[in-house]
Amino acid sequence: MEAENSGGVVRGEWPVVLVRRLIGDVLRRQRVAQGRTLREVSAAARVSLGYLSEVERGRKEASSELLAAICQALDLPLSEVLREVSDEMSRVEAAAVGALTQLRAPRADRDLAAVG
Amino acid sequence: MEAENSGGVVRGEWPVVLVRRLIGDVLRRQRVAQGRTLREVSAAARVSLGYLSEVERGRKEASSELLAAICQALDLPLSEVLREVSDEMSRVEAAAVGALTQLRAPRADRDLAAVG
Repeated sequence: MEAENSGGVVRGEWPVVLVRRLIGDVLRRQRVAQGRTLREVSAAARVSLGYLSEVERGRKEASSELLAAICQALDLPLSEVLREVSDEMSRVEAAAVGALTQLRAPRADRDLAAVG
Repeated sequence: MEAENSGGVVRGEWPVVLVRRLIGDVLRRQRVAQGRTLREVSAAARVSLGYLSEVERGRKEASSELLAAICQALDLPLSEVLREVSDEMSRVEAAAVGALTQLRAPRADRDLAAVG
């Protein structure tokens, strides 16, 4: 589980940030930026307000059909939502790799500091 | 439904290519590129072979947890899968806008021709 692959990414230890959480964040941010309410967007997307709210909070997976409907209601290309989610996931992954590197490499630093 | 927004994208008429279909394509392409079988990857991801096969064919939505497990089994950052899906979706959207433009522009020509 701890073998590093050639890309320097630590296998088996990627962060467990869930895609639905990031999708929810993007959808909520976009809706708020448009100054629209959950009620307005849920009506435009023809999904229930409760469902949209759960999706925005990352508590429900949006099916592909409903994700498309919500993006359409927000007048947002799906590709843009996915790109934002990918960018955010990339930051999370980089931070996790950084944290792991710090956990592992600097043991020497700490030892040195303790010695110095 | 037919109002154009400022970005030139036609609202309410985006292509209905489903995200799960594109996700399945990326996962299958990556697995095949690694020369691995459905059986190998499903075992590594701890999902059933049938489930992985359905996901690859875009017939089942992968939950965020299972998508993460499959990506881990493929040693692929989730951000990369999402970026590939976004890029492909972007191509689909651009092609659809192009097709709509072609369908509409000539109508003006016809009207002008009729008037002139």
